[in-house]
Order: sequence, then structure tokens, then C-alpha cells
Amino acid sequence: MKLVVLYAQPDDPAAFDAHYVSAHVPMMHKLGGVERFETGTFTAALDGGEPTYHRLTELYFRDQAAMDAAFASPVGAAMAEDYAKIAPPGSRMFIAAVDD
Amino acid sequence: MKLVVLYAQPDDPAAFDAHYVSAHVPMMHKLGGVERFETGTFTAALDGGEPTYHRLTELYFRDQAAMDAAFASPVGAAMAEDYAKIAPPGSRMFIAAVDD
Repeated sequence: MKLVVLYAQPDDPAAFDAHYVSAHVPMMHKLGGVERFETGTFTAALDGGEPTYHRLTELYFRDQAAMDAAFASPVGAAMAEDYAKIAPPGSRMFIAAVDD
Repeated sequence: MKLVVLYAQPDDPAAFDAHYVSAHVPMMHKLGGVERFETGTFTAALDGGEPTYHRLTELYFRDQAAMDAAFASPVGAAMAEDYAKIAPPGSRMFIAAVDD
């Protein structure tokens, strides 16, 4: 399963990304139980709609227990705290089950 | 880069997934230029918000030219046609650049 985070458009995308890459990504590297993660920025809305989201981040865990343990750790708590500080209004966070 | 598709909630998720897995996924397997793809369903909104999206699909291409060539092919055209038929209103389609 994976944790899917859709960051809404920040007021200052360059400042957001600078913080994200220098502060948030290093925490993902240290977070226990993460099998892998991927993050990137949206560059175009192909449907002609609003560029609703700025960044997509996915963290892969073996199962829900592994994810719960990760976010119960000090690194996980620091990540959640940083998320609360940086995520622009309208950001979304989901769990998804990846098809085989 | 990757193509990111967020399917909004269908009226009948089971019927949507049955079609998706039996008809749409085989086209992704045949689509030229796809380095890999991943698809899965959202199981929870961790932010306490609406379960806005049902399914997330990502197709990875080397570059924009590879993606354009893929969707100019007969398989790509068939995929686009199927997408137009099945994507519930509110579905979103983006291009994203994956961070190194």
C-alpha cells in the first residue's frame, strides 16, 4: 500500500520546493518501514482544468501496520508536524492499494 | 516524466474496476514507450476530507516525445477513447516531473 499526498498550489512554489527538498525529503529517507518513495511536481493539467496540485508524493509501505509504526516514530511525528506547517489549504492525503 | 490520472468516484466502483482491469490495463501493457505503469485504488482519505478519487494510475515515459508518440499510436488512441467513456466527471489528468 502507499500513502499518497497531493500538495495544493503554494503561494511561492519555489520556496515550497526548496523547503520540501532540503527538509522534508531527508525525513522520508530516515523514516523506518518505507520501502520506497517518489515525489515530483505537476507540470501540466492535460484535461484543460485548473492546476489544482503542485506536488505529488507517494510513500510505499508493506502494510498498514508498517505505516502506523512509521508515523508513531519520532521521524514520523516530525514529518507530520512539518506537513501541517507546509501543506497549502486544499492539499489531500490518501491511502491507496496498488493493484498487482 | 509521468502521466498521472485521478479517476473520480464512479457510480458503480465494482463495475468500473472490472472494466478497468479487463479492458484498460491490457491496453497499457501494449502501449509503446511506457517504461512502467502503476494503478491502484484509494482506500481512505487520511485528511478526513471527501473520498474524491477512486483510482490513481501513473504511466512513466522517458520524455514528452515518447508520451506523444504513444498516444499518437492506435493503442494510445483506443486508450484515450476508452478514457473518455469511463472517466467519471471530476477525473483529472496531469503530467508530472519526478524528482531525482
